[in-house]
Amino acid sequence: MLKKIVLTGAAGRCGSILRPALAAMCETLVCSDIVDSIDGLAANETYVKADLADYAAIAALMDGVEMVCHFGAIVDEGPFEELLGPNFIGSYNVWESAQKAGARRIVYASSIHAVGMHPRQSYIGTDAAHRPDTFYGLAKCFSEDLGRMYWEKRGIESVHLRILSCAPVKNARALGTWLSDDDLVRLVERAIDTPTTGFAVIYGVSDNDRSPVDNSNAAFLGYKPQDNAEQFAEEILAAEGPGNPADLAQMVHGGPFGPVPLGQGGAAAAAKGDD
Amino acid sequence: MLKKIVLTGAAGRCGSILRPALAAMCETLVCSDIVDSIDGLAANETYVKADLADYAAIAALMDGVEMVCHFGAIVDEGPFEELLGPNFIGSYNVWESAQKAGARRIVYASSIHAVGMHPRQSYIGTDAAHRPDTFYGLAKCFSEDLGRMYWEKRGIESVHLRILSCAPVKNARALGTWLSDDDLVRLVERAIDTPTTGFAVIYGVSDNDRSPVDNSNAAFLGYKPQDNAEQFAEEILAAEGPGNPADLAQMVHGGPFGPVPLGQGGAAAAAKGDD
Amino acid sequence: MLKKIVLTGAAGRCGSILRPALAAMCETLVCSDIVDSIDGLAANETYVKADLADYAAIAALMDGVEMVCHFGAIVDEGPFEELLGPNFIGSYNVWESAQKAGARRIVYASSIHAVGMHPRQSYIGTDAAHRPDTFYGLAKCFSEDLGRMYWEKRGIESVHLRILSCAPVKNARALGTWLSDDDLVRLVERAIDTPTTGFAVIYGVSDNDRSPVDNSNAAFLGYKPQDNAEQFAEEILAAEGPGNPADLAQMVHGGPFGPVPLGQGGAAAAAKGDD
Amino acid sequence: MLKKIVLTGAAGRCGSILRPALAAMCETLVCSDIVDSIDGLAANETYVKADLADYAAIAALMDGVEMVCHFGAIVDEGPFEELLGPNFIGSYNVWESAQKAGARRIVYASSIHAVGMHPRQSYIGTDAAHRPDTFYGLAKCFSEDLGRMYWEKRGIESVHLRILSCAPVKNARALGTWLSDDDLVRLVERAIDTPTTGFAVIYGVSDNDRSPVDNSNAAFLGYKPQDNAEQFAEEILAAEGPGNPADLAQMVHGGPFGPVPLGQGGAAAAAKGDD
Amino acid sequence: MLKKIVLTGAAGRCGSILRPALAAMCETLVCSDIVDSIDGLAANETYVKADLADYAAIAALMDGVEMVCHFGAIVDEGPFEELLGPNFIGSYNVWESAQKAGARRIVYASSIHAVGMHPRQSYIGTDAAHRPDTFYGLAKCFSEDLGRMYWEKRGIESVHLRILSCAPVKNARALGTWLSDDDLVRLVERAIDTPTTGFAVIYGVSDNDRSPVDNSNAAFLGYKPQDNAEQFAEEILAAEGPGNPADLAQMVHGGPFGPVPLGQGGAAAAAKGDD
Amino acid sequence: MLKKIVLTGAAGRCGSILRPALAAMCETLVCSDIVDSIDGLAANETYVKADLADYAAIAALMDGVEMVCHFGAIVDEGPFEELLGPNFIGSYNVWESAQKAGARRIVYASSIHAVGMHPRQSYIGTDAAHRPDTFYGLAKCFSEDLGRMYWEKRGIESVHLRILSCAPVKNARALGTWLSDDDLVRLVERAIDTPTTGFAVIYGVSDNDRSPVDNSNAAFLGYKPQDNAEQFAEEILAAEGPGNPADLAQMVHGGPFGPVPLGQGGAAAAAKGDD
Repeated sequence: MLKKIVLTGAAGRCGSILRPALAAMCETLVCSDIVDSIDGLAANETYVKADLADYAAIAALMDGVEMVCHFGAIVDEGPFEELLGPNFIGSYNVWESAQKAGARRIVYASSIHAVGMHPRQSYIGTDAAHRPDTFYGLAKCFSEDLGRMYWEKRGIESVHLRILSCAPVKNARALGTWLSDDDLVRLVERAIDTPTTGFAVIYGVSDNDRSPVDNSNAAFLGYKPQDNAEQFAEEILAAEGPGNPADLAQMVHGGPFGPVPLGQGGAAAAAKGDD
Repeated sequence: MLKKIVLTGAAGRCGSILRPALAAMCETLVCSDIVDSIDGLAANETYVKADLADYAAIAALMDGVEMVCHFGAIVDEGPFEELLGPNFIGSYNVWESAQKAGARRIVYASSIHAVGMHPRQSYIGTDAAHRPDTFYGLAKCFSEDLGRMYWEKRGIESVHLRILSCAPVKNARALGTWLSDDDLVRLVERAIDTPTTGFAVIYGVSDNDRSPVDNSNAAFLGYKPQDNAEQFAEEILAAEGPGNPADLAQMVHGGPFGPVPLGQGGAAAAAKGDD
Repeated sequence: MLKKIVLTGAAGRCGSILRPALAAMCETLVCSDIVDSIDGLAANETYVKADLADYAAIAALMDGVEMVCHFGAIVDEGPFEELLGPNFIGSYNVWESAQKAGARRIVYASSIHAVGMHPRQSYIGTDAAHRPDTFYGLAKCFSEDLGRMYWEKRGIESVHLRILSCAPVKNARALGTWLSDDDLVRLVERAIDTPTTGFAVIYGVSDNDRSPVDNSNAAFLGYKPQDNAEQFAEEILAAEGPGNPADLAQMVHGGPFGPVPLGQGGAAAAAKGDD
Repeated sequence: MLKKIVLTGAAGRCGSILRPALAAMCETLVCSDIVDSIDGLAANETYVKADLADYAAIAALMDGVEMVCHFGAIVDEGPFEELLGPNFIGSYNVWESAQKAGARRIVYASSIHAVGMHPRQSYIGTDAAHRPDTFYGLAKCFSEDLGRMYWEKRGIESVHLRILSCAPVKNARALGTWLSDDDLVRLVERAIDTPTTGFAVIYGVSDNDRSPVDNSNAAFLGYKPQDNAEQFAEEILAAEGPGNPADLAQMVHGGPFGPVPLGQGGAAAAAKGDD
Repeated sequence: MLKKIVLTGAAGRCGSILRPALAAMCETLVCSDIVDSIDGLAANETYVKADLADYAAIAALMDGVEMVCHFGAIVDEGPFEELLGPNFIGSYNVWESAQKAGARRIVYASSIHAVGMHPRQSYIGTDAAHRPDTFYGLAKCFSEDLGRMYWEKRGIESVHLRILSCAPVKNARALGTWLSDDDLVRLVERAIDTPTTGFAVIYGVSDNDRSPVDNSNAAFLGYKPQDNAEQFAEEILAAEGPGNPADLAQMVHGGPFGPVPLGQGGAAAAAKGDD
Repeated sequence: MLKKIVLTGAAGRCGSILRPALAAMCETLVCSDIVDSIDGLAANETYVKADLADYAAIAALMDGVEMVCHFGAIVDEGPFEELLGPNFIGSYNVWESAQKAGARRIVYASSIHAVGMHPRQSYIGTDAAHRPDTFYGLAKCFSEDLGRMYWEKRGIESVHLRILSCAPVKNARALGTWLSDDDLVRLVERAIDTPTTGFAVIYGVSDNDRSPVDNSNAAFLGYKPQDNAEQFAEEILAAEGPGNPADLAQMVHGGPFGPVPLGQGGAAAAAKGDD
C-alpha cells in the first residue's frame, strides 16, 4: 500500500478510468487537472486544480508523493505554441518537482505517436527510434528523453506507456491498436507494483490478434492484456471495405492522426512494408 | 465482399482446401489449373484450364480481378528446365497480367524451401535471407523478389505465404512444420481481409509446440493458428527413434526435400546449431 | 525408449525431481552423486557414488550410455578453489568420458548466473553474452563453451538448461524466475526427446507473467511451461514492499546470489534499464 | 552556387569559423546572432541581430533562403527555463519559418550530448538511441526529432551534425573527440554540397586515432576528416596521469559536461564497458 | 597459375578491361560472347561465340575449367521476356555446366540493381535483402540465390561482384558509385586469388569519398580499391546543381536505371533516409 | 610513467618483444616465467621465476603493481589436464592476486582461438560469441569471462588482446592474420596508456589487406596498426596453390590449430560462408 499517488489529467478519459484502481493502491490519491472540479471523489481522493505549465502549482501537489501517474496533456494535435505549455513544459515541471519531492517513480502516458511514422508492417519494439508524426507525438519523444535523463542522472524511475488507442473500436486500424479500459488498468497496475523498473517503455495495447507492436523488451513488467478487438473485426471490416496502400494514414503506425498531406516530402517513405 | 478472386492451382491439395472459403469471400471465384476440369463447383465458381507458362492464357483470367491467390506450380523438386515454365515464368505471367488488370493484391503460395538451408536451430524470421534448398525453392525466391519489385515500383500488394508442410503429420520434422487445413484457410483469409498489406511475408505453420520459425514481423496480419501437431508427438517419436545430427536433412529447415548429397560441398555448413 | 541414461547430481533437489521421469524414459537409469546412497530406487535404477573431479570414477558410469543428464555440482557460490573440482573439472570429465563412450547427447544444468550481470530490464535471449556474477556462474560459462566445442569438433550434442530458480517462490524476483518442479520435468523431457538438437541453450523458467528472458531461439525444442508464479504475486508483493533501484541485486538477472558489494567497481553498470 | 544561406549563431566559435567558407558557397550569406554586431563582414555577408525565441525575428531572415545553417543556441548547460527559449523554441522557429519560406535544407549543430550517457566503450553509430546527459543535450534530442518530422511530413531536408568537441585539445578525452576547425568546415561543406540528404545524422569529429563514434551510416555524405588529435597525445597523457574508471565522467561519451553527481541514481549504469 | 579460365561477356566493357589481367593469371583463357569475333587475342587466349541461353554451347566451353568469370548478360533494362534467356537461363547454364565440369569457382558480375530499391542513405552491407529495381536486377537476385544453392548443396564456390557503376563519372550519383577500370581488375584478381571463398558477395566500387555501401563482410577477400571519384566532384556538382529529394531516382541506391514512375505504388517508400 | 608493471610469460616470443617497450613505460618492470632466467635485463627490469599455477608464487609478484601484462601460458594445444594449471588456474591466480594488490588493470594475451570456430567469411567483431576450437582456446574463453566478472564485480579493468598470429608469415591464412612485432608493441602500448578501459576486447592483427576481423568496437583504444602482410602475398600464394573449401581448417578463423578431424561431428558447420 503506497502512501500517496498523484494523478495528473484526472478529468480525462484515461484518468477517469484509472481513478478507482489507483485509489485502491494507496492511502491518498491526489487528483489534478485543469478543470474546476471532478465528480465522485472516493474517501481517500482529493482534487486540486492545477495548470501543468505552472511549476509552482505542480510542485504543490508533490509533497510526500511516492508515485506519480502523469496523464495530463492536450490530447489532440495542435500548433506547437499551444502544446508547448501543457505537453512540453508540463512534463518538465512534473519530473523536476517529483524528483525534488523524493518520488520513486513516474508512470507516464506516452503514445504511439512518438513513433508514429514507422511503417505499420514493421513490428516495432519498445526501442524503436523516435519518429513523431505530430507535435503531439514530439512532446511524447521529449518526455521520454527527459525521463531517461532523470533516471540516468538523478535516479528517479519512470515507466512510459506508449498507448496505441484508448477508445472504442470504430475502424480497421483499431482492430490492432485498441487498448481496452480494463487492460489500461492492468497496465498501470503493473507499472506501479513492479518493485523496480528503472527507465522502461511499454506499448499500451490489448491482446489483439492484429496488434502491430512488440512488448517483449518490457516482459519483466509482467503486463498480460486480456481483451481482444478481434470480436469487432467482422462488422468493421465489412463496413470499411478495401484499404488503400497509397494512403499514408493506412500504412504507418500512427494512422490518420493529424493532417498528413499525402505524397508531400519524405512522408511517403514511411509507408513501405519493411525496414 | 470482393467482386472477383482468381485462384491458380485450384486442382491441387491447397487449392482444393481453399475453394469453399474463397468462394464465400467474393461474388465470383475463377478457378484455374492445368487439368481439364475440377469437381464440385459452387454457384459462384467457374473453372478455366490454363497453362501458367502461357501469358495470354493467364491474362485472360484477370479481367476485373481484385485479388489473386496464386497457388499453381509444380509442387515437387525437378530439373530446372521443367520448373522454368510453371514456377518461374508462371509467376511473372501472374504478376504482370494481374497488375495490368488493376488487381489490388496477390496472395502467393511461397515455401519454407526458399530458406530451407538455414539451420533448424536458428529461429528464422520472415526477413531471413534466401537460402533455397532446391530449384523448387529457388522459384519461390524468384517470385518473392518479383513481388517485392512489383510492390515497390508499381504499387501492387502481395502476401507471400511460406508454407512449411501442408500435409498430414507423418514424421518428427512435421511436429514442428505442420500447417493444418483449417489453419491454411485462416491464413489465407487474413492475407485477404487485412485492409492494406504492402509487400509482406509470413510463414504458413500451425500453432505447433515445436514450430521452428518466427512470424512476429507479420503480426499486423493477425494470423492466429489454432491447431497443434503435438497431439501426434508421442506416437511419431516412438516410431521414429533417435535422430542423427550428421544427417543434414534433420538439421536444416527444409528437411529431406530433394536429393541432398550428405557431406558434399558447403552444405553441411547449414547444419550447425546457431548462426 | 532409450537404453541407458546417466544422471549426475541425483541426490540434489533437481535430480530428485527428475529421477521418476528419467526412469520412465529408458531401460536403465544410472544415478550418481557424492553421497553414499539415495532412497527409493526404481526397478531400473542403480546408484553409483562418484566424485565428479575423478575422471576414472565418472568414466566408469558411461559404458553404453546414450544420454547424460549432468546435474551434479556444488550449487552455491564458493571460493574458486572449492568449485574447481566438481564444477569445472567435473564438466570436462563428463564430456570427455561421455564422448569417448559414444553418448549421443548431454543435457546440462546450466544457470542464469552464467549471464547474471545483464540488467534485468534487458530481455536476454539464449545468445546473450556470458556475464557471470559468481565463480558458480563462471563454471556454467566454462561448461557451455566446452559443450559447444565438443559439438563443433566431435559431434556430441548438448542442451544447456539455464535454470533461473528451481525453488519455492519466496520473493518478488522469483515471480519472474520460478521454474516449477513440473516444468523442470517438461523441460528435460523435451531436451531428451527432440530427435536432433546440435548444441542448444534454453532458459529453464515457468510460464510466469513476469518471466524476464527470451527462449525464442530454442523454439524448435517445443518446451511449453504450464505453471505461473503470478499466483503468488499479491501476497509476496504486499510483504516485500517497494524495491530499491540503487540495490544492484534488484536490477540484474542474477539477483542477490553471492556477495555483490554495492557501488564497487564497474558492477553498478549492469543495473541500467536498457542496453 | 547557392542564392542565399542563413547562418544563426554567427558570432559564436563555430559560426566564426564557418563564415568564410559559407560566404564562398553562396551569393548572399545572412548572419544572425544575439549580439549587436559582428566584425569582418565580407562583401556578400550581412548581419541581422535576432532572438531565436522570437518567431517573427527569425522568420524575417528566411525570405528566399535555400540553406540554413542553424548554429545558434546557448552552448553551455543551464537550467531548463533558460535553455527553453533559444535551444528548444528557437529550433522550432527555425524549422517552421525555413520550411514556410521554401528552404531546401537545414544544417544543424547537434551534439554528442544528445547521446552523452552511452558508455564510451560502445562504438555508437548515428542511430544510437537518444540518451541526453544535460538539458543542453535534451534540446539536441528535441531538435533532431523535430527535424525528422519536418522531413517525413513536409519534405524539408536536414543534416544533424553531432559535434563532439569543437575546441582546442586540452585533456585525454579530447584525443578522441576533437573536431578541428578545418574539419568542421569540411563537414559543413559536405552537408551543403551533397545533392540530396533527406534526414541525416553525422558525428562531427576529426580523423583521430581514438575517435569513439561510428559515422558509417552517413558514408554517402562523403565527409573525410583530415586532422588527428594523436599529435597531442604524448604530452596530454603524461600530464593527465591514470584515469579513474569509477568516475562516470571518464566512462561516458558526454564526458564531464554538466554536474554529474557520481554514484547517484541510475547514472553509473552508463559506465559499463559494453552494451 | 591457373590452368584454364572461361570469361563470358568477353566483348563487353568489363570483359574487355579484364582480358589482359585474366590472361596473365592462367595458361588458357577462353573468351566467349554473342558477337562473331573479338580483337587482340593474346597468345593464350581463344574466342568462342556462344549463346548463353544455349546449354550445349555453354557446356562446350567448360572442359577442364578451374575458374569461370561470368560477365555475359544483356546489360540494360528490358522486358522480362528478352532478359529471360541470357540473364536468367544463362546463369543456370553457366553454373550447371561449370559444376559438372568440376570448376572450383565462378566469379559473377552481379549489380547494385539487385538491391537498388534500398534508400541511398542506408549504408547497405553485402547481406542487404534483395530489393531489385528492374528485371535486370531481378536476374542478379536470381543468380545470387542460384550461386548460394550450388555452394551449399554442391560445393562449387562463387564470388558475386555487385558492381555499382563501371563507367566514366558523369553525374553526382557516380561520385559515390564509380568503379574505375583498374579497381575492377583489382577486384576480380582478389576474387580469383583468394584460396577459398565459399559463397561470397562484395560490392564493386572504388575508394570514393562518397561510396554508399559497406564491404566489411567481405574483408577476408582483401579488396583494396585505389581510385577515388572525388577528383571529379567540383566540376560535376557545379554542373548538376541542387538535387531533388522528391525524385526517387536520387534517393535510392539503384538511381535512375530503368523507368521509375515517380510517386506510383510503394516505390516512394524507398526514398526515406533511414531504415 | 607507471610505478610498476608485471609481465608474465616474459621468456616467450611475445614477452621478449614487449620487454623493451614495457621497461620504457614504468619505473620497475617485473618479468616472470617458468624458466630459470632470461637474458638482457634492463636497469629497471627484474626477473622472478614463478609457476602460474602456484597462487603464492604469483601473488608474490604483485606488491605495488599498477599494471599486469599477462602473457604467460602454454602456447600450444594440449590435453586439458596439461593446460589446466598454467592456462586456467594461472589466469585465476593472476586476477585474484592482482586485484587484491590493488592493480588498476590487466592486459591479457587472449587469442583468436577463443572464437576460432566462426567461419572465416564472417567478419567477426569483438563481441562475437565464444566458439573455442581447442582446449587452448577454451582457456582464453575462461579468462575473458573471468576478467569481465572481476571488472563488473570488483572494479579491476582488463583489456583482452585476441591475437591472431604473432609469428612470421608462412602461409596464405597468415596474409590475413599476421600481427607484426611492431604492431604488437603498439597494441600493448595503447592497452596501457588509455586512461580508462573498463573491460575491453580487441583483436591483435596488423593492418593487413586481408584482415578478417572487426575491431571497431574497440575504436576508443586508438590502436592503429602500421604493417601489412600483403607484401608477402604474391610469393606465398604462388607457392601454396589453390585452396580446398572442403578443408575445415581453411574455412574457419582459427585455422589448422589443433587436430580438427574433417567432416566429423558438427564441425563442418563452421565452414559456411555466412551467418
